[in-house]
Amino acid sequence: MAAAIPHGTDAVLERVLIIGTGLIGTSIALALRERGIEVLLADRDPEAARVAADMGAGVPAPATPDEPADLAVLAVPPPAVAAALLDAQKSGAAQVYTDVASVKGLPLAQAAELGCDLAVFAGGHPLGGRERSGPLAARPGLFLGRPWVLCPTAESTEAVVASAAALALACGANPVTMDAVEHDRAVALISHAPHVVASAMAARFTAGPERALALAGQGARDVTRIAGGDPRLWHGILAANAQPVADVIDAVARDLAAAAAGLRAAAGGVAAGGAEPGGVGAARDTLDLLARGAAGHGRIPGKHGGPATRHAVVPVLAADRPGELALIVQAAGVAGINIEDVLIEHSQGRSVGVVELAVAPESARRLIEELRARGWSVPVAPA
Amino acid sequence: MAAAIPHGTDAVLERVLIIGTGLIGTSIALALRERGIEVLLADRDPEAARVAADMGAGVPAPATPDEPADLAVLAVPPPAVAAALLDAQKSGAAQVYTDVASVKGLPLAQAAELGCDLAVFAGGHPLGGRERSGPLAARPGLFLGRPWVLCPTAESTEAVVASAAALALACGANPVTMDAVEHDRAVALISHAPHVVASAMAARFTAGPERALALAGQGARDVTRIAGGDPRLWHGILAANAQPVADVIDAVARDLAAAAAGLRAAAGGVAAGGAEPGGVGAARDTLDLLARGAAGHGRIPGKHGGPATRHAVVPVLAADRPGELALIVQAAGVAGINIEDVLIEHSQGRSVGVVELAVAPESARRLIEELRARGWSVPVAPA
Repeated sequence: MAAAIPHGTDAVLERVLIIGTGLIGTSIALALRERGIEVLLADRDPEAARVAADMGAGVPAPATPDEPADLAVLAVPPPAVAAALLDAQKSGAAQVYTDVASVKGLPLAQAAELGCDLAVFAGGHPLGGRERSGPLAARPGLFLGRPWVLCPTAESTEAVVASAAALALACGANPVTMDAVEHDRAVALISHAPHVVASAMAARFTAGPERALALAGQGARDVTRIAGGDPRLWHGILAANAQPVADVIDAVARDLAAAAAGLRAAAGGVAAGGAEPGGVGAARDTLDLLARGAAGHGRIPGKHGGPATRHAVVPVLAADRPGELALIVQAAGVAGINIEDVLIEHSQGRSVGVVELAVAPESARRLIEELRARGWSVPVAPA
Repeated sequence: MAAAIPHGTDAVLERVLIIGTGLIGTSIALALRERGIEVLLADRDPEAARVAADMGAGVPAPATPDEPADLAVLAVPPPAVAAALLDAQKSGAAQVYTDVASVKGLPLAQAAELGCDLAVFAGGHPLGGRERSGPLAARPGLFLGRPWVLCPTAESTEAVVASAAALALACGANPVTMDAVEHDRAVALISHAPHVVASAMAARFTAGPERALALAGQGARDVTRIAGGDPRLWHGILAANAQPVADVIDAVARDLAAAAAGLRAAAGGVAAGGAEPGGVGAARDTLDLLARGAAGHGRIPGKHGGPATRHAVVPVLAADRPGELALIVQAAGVAGINIEDVLIEHSQGRSVGVVELAVAPESARRLIEELRARGWSVPVAPA
């Protein structure tokens, strides 16, 4: 059952202890169970461990372990990692230990301070998640194809690194090794700062009039989607990665203040210039910011983890009723065309909507013909 | 062919002139054609009008009009509206005029300054769009179920208001009346400022190392999606609505600067407080910002335009191959369950992915049973 792992050793994962059965811990447990690995579940809230067990994620761990597990996974928020590691090591819970917190530097420093045995610890961070939290939101495929950063230290034994990598592979993730500093800066940029920025934009919506909010569409929804996450959980993450996150959001704040000054100046209001607080960027044009934004957006990898893939999007006018979508995608399936993504635009109080099918560009023409032949309206230009 | 319209009059839309055949103008033209309304197409770039005509959006307008159209639609960027209106009125292009620019105050002021006949003009703004621009991205359903703001002035005749409303209804949109000031503040909040905020976040990605960007996932993609729009087009929009947009992004910048100061203070760095530029909000806790963000996010209406609807999401493990999605949604259709949304999570280099089906909460249990009965793995807890 053990997955093949790097480093030339064979890490045996036959029995894994999950400490913390929230979204991440339970998702890992479910993935391990799909591979037939024995999973023990522990949570400071016994009801959460019970729910995870009921979902088929494993069995509740006994109060005192019979024998150490092959690996213990600390699936607790960043501020709780060090204490959980100390507790687990004191009770001899496992042979080696890893965690899954989205911050790596501070928990490590705290663990060292508490006197944990860092030789048998290698931190990890699977890059997957969702706005919903708790075991009920868990799913075994949460980390499929996603990066899983491993942050071993110079002290970490080969055995713990191999076990942590085997865990990542067992969950279908791609292990990547970084040191804690590089990791924390990276996630500040691509995850933590975007969360604060989304929150700061969404916070403006608390004061807006109902009639204004009623005009909001997919753009406003997308920009602020992650702001729907649990504020307490996220506050803990941000506080544990404070400096790198502050650096990024300070830079965003400066660019926004400069853009506002530029817009006011263009509107003939107060002049932008050296008097701007922070003194940075007031001369930078809003157009320049928009151009940098478009360039930066283009650097985000696509869903498949590689460089952003360009799909052709085929729109279809479809009745908003059960079975209609099935008929449409069935037509694609019959033609041997793989649908990469589906976007359904409903229409308020109407019986028709637009279904957009993303397919490989070379398949688009064939899909359009197939759908038109079956009577659907596909409003695109002829080739 | 004329749609029913408010104001108790019957506006006849038999012949409409579209001036500007980009995304918005061509989408309107396609919607009108679907209702059998005659459409004349004009663009300062004859090739763009040609493409729109080839898409079935109408016929190129003659250089000098035979007789005035019932309505001319100025589908040009905000800074170009007033001049286009003057030109059209000089040539007697139509009996009444509307526009579709996303800013309403400045074009109106400019039109008054140029001496346009404002009695036969009523501004409009359909709240729909996409990142792609140009006639090829157009589709007749772009405004289905979306709000379409009408901004008549005290000068506007009943006839022009009725015609503009009839246009909105013919495109499947919901006409809403506001004055220009209220409109411009509303779109600054829910559209223009989010665009700048997304750009400012995405601009950070221009400098990030490749290994950091490789960790980015759906969160980073969503926050910055609209930053992929055309910088020049957006710069024109922002400049035309400068003051309201600057007010919102200044407030966002202050919240971000305060959050950064709060994080640095929590990390034991420099203290946050009165010395912070702007002097506002440094005392506000990051947690408070996150909580306000979650609350504001919750105020965005759902896809259907009403209050955000809660759907149940049913995850299914599915093979990544043609026909698989068809079989899954077919199973839902057979059970009479309407699928509200589909999210496909691919996995890099693997043959399995997760398909998430959003359905009405009361249908979830039945869908899960249906799918499991047909052999799919549906990783959710038993009820």
